[in-house]
Amino acid sequence: MDTQGGSRGRETDQEELIVNCLPLNEGERARFVQAAGGIRQRFVTDVSVRDHMQWPMGISQSDISDATIIFGNPSAEQISHCHRLRWLQTSSAGVDAYTAPGILPGNAILTSASGAYGQAVSEHMFAMMLALMKDLPFYRDRQAERDWHPGGEVYSPQESTVLVLGTGDIGAHFARLCKGAGAVTYGVRRHADQAVEGFDEIFPFDSLDGLLPKVDVVALALPSTPQTRHIIDADRLALMKKRAILLNVGRGDAVDCRSLASTLEKGGIFGAGLDVTEPEPLPPDHPLWSQPRCLITPHVAGGSHLASNVGKIIAICIDNLRRYRAGQDLRNRVR
Amino acid sequence: MDTQGGSRGRETDQEELIVNCLPLNEGERARFVQAAGGIRQRFVTDVSVRDHMQWPMGISQSDISDATIIFGNPSAEQISHCHRLRWLQTSSAGVDAYTAPGILPGNAILTSASGAYGQAVSEHMFAMMLALMKDLPFYRDRQAERDWHPGGEVYSPQESTVLVLGTGDIGAHFARLCKGAGAVTYGVRRHADQAVEGFDEIFPFDSLDGLLPKVDVVALALPSTPQTRHIIDADRLALMKKRAILLNVGRGDAVDCRSLASTLEKGGIFGAGLDVTEPEPLPPDHPLWSQPRCLITPHVAGGSHLASNVGKIIAICIDNLRRYRAGQDLRNRVR
Repeated sequence: MDTQGGSRGRETDQEELIVNCLPLNEGERARFVQAAGGIRQRFVTDVSVRDHMQWPMGISQSDISDATIIFGNPSAEQISHCHRLRWLQTSSAGVDAYTAPGILPGNAILTSASGAYGQAVSEHMFAMMLALMKDLPFYRDRQAERDWHPGGEVYSPQESTVLVLGTGDIGAHFARLCKGAGAVTYGVRRHADQAVEGFDEIFPFDSLDGLLPKVDVVALALPSTPQTRHIIDADRLALMKKRAILLNVGRGDAVDCRSLASTLEKGGIFGAGLDVTEPEPLPPDHPLWSQPRCLITPHVAGGSHLASNVGKIIAICIDNLRRYRAGQDLRNRVR
Repeated sequence: MDTQGGSRGRETDQEELIVNCLPLNEGERARFVQAAGGIRQRFVTDVSVRDHMQWPMGISQSDISDATIIFGNPSAEQISHCHRLRWLQTSSAGVDAYTAPGILPGNAILTSASGAYGQAVSEHMFAMMLALMKDLPFYRDRQAERDWHPGGEVYSPQESTVLVLGTGDIGAHFARLCKGAGAVTYGVRRHADQAVEGFDEIFPFDSLDGLLPKVDVVALALPSTPQTRHIIDADRLALMKKRAILLNVGRGDAVDCRSLASTLEKGGIFGAGLDVTEPEPLPPDHPLWSQPRCLITPHVAGGSHLASNVGKIIAICIDNLRRYRAGQDLRNRVR
C-alpha cells in the first residue's frame, strides 16, 4: 500500500519512496504518514509481529528496487541490492551489519536508533549486577530443590566501585543507576578529558590494566570494533578482584568467553552476568552454561520486550523524517 | 572472662555485669571494654561463628544468673530467667520475641539494632524487584536447560509506581533506591501526615484497598503485629494489577502464602519476591516453591552476610553503652 502525500509534497518527493519495515499500529502509521508529508510510504510489516524479540523485517523485490528511504533492519544482503537507497534509518542501536564496504550505496546516509535502548539495556545490566551481588542465581537454583538454607557472603552497591567500559547512552544510563544505589562510578572512553554525567571519574582505555585490580564491578557496554574484541581476555580477568563481577550487554566478542569460564571455574572472580556471548546463540556444550555464578540471558536486554522501547524507536524515526524533509542534520548519523 | 574496668568505674558499676554475646574480634572487644568504662563484661561468643547466618548466642547458667546487661539475642526462654536484667540490647532489628509478658523483668529496658539492616534488607528487596521486572528467574531456569530463547514482556522501574507498606528504616531505604531508578514511590504508614524522605506521597493504612489497583509493585517491610497479619490476603491480591509484583522482606505472616500461590497459579499477578514466608522454613510441599515467578530466598536479606552489617550493629551497641553510662536516652528503645 502506497500512502500518497497531499498537496504539500515537494516536486522531488515523487521520486522518493519510504519502505517502512517497523511493525506499527494504525495510529503510529498515521503519525509516519503525517511526518512524511508528500513522500510516498509503504508499510510492509504487520503489527502482529511486534511481540517478537527480533522483528522480522524482510522486504519484497519491488521494495528493494524502489526504496529510497528504509526504516528498519532488513538484512544486509537485501540492503546491498537497494541501489536507489539514499537513507537507511535502523530500528537498532548497532549498525555494524551495514557499515561493511559494498552494503550501502556510496552516498547513502545511515542513522541508528541509538538512544532508544539505553534505559532497557542498562536496567537489565543493573538487575543482573544486583542479582549477582545478592547471590539470587544461587538461591534460584536452591529453590528448584525446595532447599531453605542460607548461602554465603553478599555484596552491596553502596560499598562498590563500578567500572564501565563505554560511556555512551547505555553505559551512562547504567552509571546513573549505580550511583543512585550508592556506588562509585568510573568510566573508560576514548576521550577521557570529557566529563560524562553519572561518572565520578573518566579514564582513557590505556588505564584499564591499572584500574581492573581496584574495582568491584566491570561493566561492558561497547560496540563491536577490532579494538574491543576480547578486550576482557584471560590476562585481564586475572587482574580482577576475587570478589569482582563482570557484566556484558554490548557485543559478545568483547569477552573471551572460554577464558571467562575457566576463570569462574577456579574462583578467579565472583560472578558474571552476560546478555551477549561469543558465539550467539551460546552452544549447548559451552562451559559457561554450567558455571553457577554465570547468569546468562539470550541477548534480550535491548529487545522490544520493554514496551516503551518501541515508542522511543518511533520517536527517533519520526524526528529524523521531519529533519530529512526540512533539510536539517539527522540525529544518530553514522555516515 | 570478666574484663574489669579501671579506676574510672562508678561505685554502682560493681553491681553491673555485661554479658556480651556478639561474635567479636580482639579489636572490637577492646572497643567494647573501653566503652564500658568500669562495668565488668563477659565475652561469651567466639568470633569464629561470625559467618553463620544466625549467630548462636546461647548463654551459660552463670551468665543467666549474673547478667544485668546483655548484648545480643539469647533465646526468649533464657532471657526469661535473667532476673537481674536491667537492659537487653539485641543485635536484631525485630524484638517481638522479647516483648511478650513474662520474658523481661518488669522494669528492664529493651533496645534493638534497628537501623543496622535497612541497607542490606532494602537492597535485597530491590534486587528481587529488578530481577522479577527483567524476568531473570525465568532466564535462570532456562539456563539449566542450556536454552537460548527469549521470554516475554519485561518492565521498568522508571515506568512503575511502587507502594511500600512500612516506612521505617528498611521501607524508606528501599523507597530511595526505587526513586534512584526512576520509580514513583508511595508509602503507607500509621501517621500519614508526616512526610518521609524517599516517598512521593504518604497514605494511611485505610487507603490500602484504593491504592492496590493503581500500583505496579507492593513491597512489605512491616513488623509482625496482630494488625499486619495477612494484611495481603486473597481479597487484596485480587485487587492488584495483573502486571503487579509483590515483595516481602519484613515478616512472613504479612502475606497469606497459600492465597499467594493460588493467585500466581492463575496469573492474578505477575510475580512475587519473598525473603520471608509463613511458615519458615517453607515446607518442601508448599505450593509456592514451584511457582515459576515466585522468587524465594530463605530469610537471608538481613543476616550477617553483608559484612558491613556487623559494623553497624557494633556501632549501635557501643553508642548505646556510652549513653547508658552517661545516663542519656538510649537509641532504638522499644520499652
